[in-house]
Amino acid sequence: MAGKGERLGIIAGGGQLPLAIAETAQATGRAIFVLALEGAADADGIERFPHAWVSLGELGRMVKLLRDSGCSEITFAGKVARPEFAKLKLDGRGALALPRVMAAAVKGDDALLRAILSVFEAEGMRVIGSDEAAQDLIAPKGPLGMLEPTDEEEADIVHGMEIVAALGALDIGQAAVVCRGLVLAVEAAEGTDAMLMRVAALPAALRGTHEEKKGVLVKAAKPGQERRIDLPVIGVRTVELAASAGLGGIAIEAGAALIVNRLGVTQAANRHGLFVTGVAPYGTAP
Amino acid sequence: MAGKGERLGIIAGGGQLPLAIAETAQATGRAIFVLALEGAADADGIERFPHAWVSLGELGRMVKLLRDSGCSEITFAGKVARPEFAKLKLDGRGALALPRVMAAAVKGDDALLRAILSVFEAEGMRVIGSDEAAQDLIAPKGPLGMLEPTDEEEADIVHGMEIVAALGALDIGQAAVVCRGLVLAVEAAEGTDAMLMRVAALPAALRGTHEEKKGVLVKAAKPGQERRIDLPVIGVRTVELAASAGLGGIAIEAGAALIVNRLGVTQAANRHGLFVTGVAPYGTAP
Repeated sequence: MAGKGERLGIIAGGGQLPLAIAETAQATGRAIFVLALEGAADADGIERFPHAWVSLGELGRMVKLLRDSGCSEITFAGKVARPEFAKLKLDGRGALALPRVMAAAVKGDDALLRAILSVFEAEGMRVIGSDEAAQDLIAPKGPLGMLEPTDEEEADIVHGMEIVAALGALDIGQAAVVCRGLVLAVEAAEGTDAMLMRVAALPAALRGTHEEKKGVLVKAAKPGQERRIDLPVIGVRTVELAASAGLGGIAIEAGAALIVNRLGVTQAANRHGLFVTGVAPYGTAP
Repeated sequence: MAGKGERLGIIAGGGQLPLAIAETAQATGRAIFVLALEGAADADGIERFPHAWVSLGELGRMVKLLRDSGCSEITFAGKVARPEFAKLKLDGRGALALPRVMAAAVKGDDALLRAILSVFEAEGMRVIGSDEAAQDLIAPKGPLGMLEPTDEEEADIVHGMEIVAALGALDIGQAAVVCRGLVLAVEAAEGTDAMLMRVAALPAALRGTHEEKKGVLVKAAKPGQERRIDLPVIGVRTVELAASAGLGGIAIEAGAALIVNRLGVTQAANRHGLFVTGVAPYGTAP
C-alpha cells in the first residue's frame, strides 16, 4: 500500500460505500480526492469531501483531475447503473476506450468493470480494492451482534454459500435468500435491496415473519471476482430489509464482504433480533 | 399410455395448465376427473369438468375419490404454493405421509413433489407427466409465430440456457432473463410472472423497450427433473409480460416446456412483435 502521505483517489458511484471509504481513509490520516460520478454518487454525502463531478465517459478528464490532485493510487466504490452507451457524455479518451468497453459489457459486469480499470492502469495508476483502501470495512469472521445462527440457519447458510458460488461463477449476482432449504430469491441485476423486498412480498407460508423468523440472506464475492471493484456490501438498510422479509439473519463472506457502518449494523441486528455473521469462503474449511 | 377408455385423474393446482390438460384429454376422447386443490385451483375453470375439491393434506380422501371415479392413471398440474404444514387439513393417510414430505421439503421443490408422488404410487396408481397426459401442449422446435430471434438474441438464448441449466441443477428455478449478455433476472420462488414484472421495473438503460426490444426470457426443465410434475409452462400472459419488459422474445425447451393455448400465444407474439421459439435442451446439438 502507498504511504499515508499520498493522496487516494476515490471514484464514487451511489450508496454509502464510497463515503465510508473516504471517511475511513481520512480517519487514518490519509488525504483523499473524490471523483463523483454524475447520476450515481450521493450529492449530499460527497459535499463533505474534496471532490469534482464527472461523467463515466470523461475518462481523459478523470485522469487529469486525479493527476492534478496528486492521486496515483485510486479505488472504485459504489453502485453505477450500466450506462446507455449511445447517450454517454464522452471526451477523447472516453471515445477511444468505448468500443472495447462496450464489447466487454456483453460478457457481464465483471468484464465491463475490468475494461474500465485497464484504462486507468494504462495511464500508470495503481487501482486498489475497497478492502485495501479501507481495511476497517472488511467483514470479520463470526457474529457481530448478540445473536448467532441456529442449526437450521447454519444449514441454510451452507446451502446459500453453495448457491451464491454457482451464481457468481456465471456472473449473475452475489446474493441469495434461502429458507429451510428452499431458495426464495436470487439476486441478478436488481440488487440486494430489491431482492429482499421481493421476499417480503412472497406468501407468508414460504418465508419467516417478524414473530417467527426463518431463512438467511447470504452475500459473498464471486469466485475469481475482480476484487478491486464491486465487493459485496451490507449496511443498516440491508439489516432492516432482511428483518422486513422475516429472515433470521445475514451471512457474509468474511475477508471479502464490506460492512458500511459496523456499529449501526450491529445495533440494527440486535434491535431487530437478527444475527449478522461472517463465514468462511465457499469451498474452504469453516 | 393407458387406453382412451380409462379415465385420467387430474390433480389440479392453480393457473391454466390443468384446464388445458383437461380440455386436451377430453378433445381426444378421454374421460377425466379433476381433484381441485383448495386455495390453488381456479374455481371458475374447474366447474366445467367433473371434479371434487380436496386439501393437499387429505391424501386418503384423494386416493378414494380417484378410485371411486375409476382413475388408476393420474397427473399433477398447476401451481401449488408450499403448504403451511402446521395448518394443513390432514386425513389419516395425509398425517402418515407428513413427516416424510416435510423432510423432503427441506431439500427443495423437486424432492417435495417426488415425496407426494410416491404416496399415490404406493397405492398402485400410475403417475404420468403433463407432457404425456396432453401431448399437444408440448413445445415444438423452432419459432411459433412470424418472428425469429436475431443473432444477438440467439447469443442471449445460448447464454440463458446455460444459466437455467445451472439454476436447475441447484433446484432454484426454471427461468432467467438475459439481455445482451447481462443476466437481468433469475427465477426462484416468486415465479416467472413476478420475474418479468421485475425486469419491466429495471432502469431503461439495462433492458429493452417497446420501441427497441432487447433480451430474451428462457425457460427450460431442470436437468434430471421429476418430469411428471412441474414442467416449465408459458401462456398468453407470459408473452404479454415479456412484451411489457421490453424483451425481444421467449425461448423454451422443445419437447419439455408446455404451451397453454398455442394459438393465443402465437397471436399474442405476432401482435406484440415478439418471437416465441422452441430450442434444443442444454448440452445437446441445436
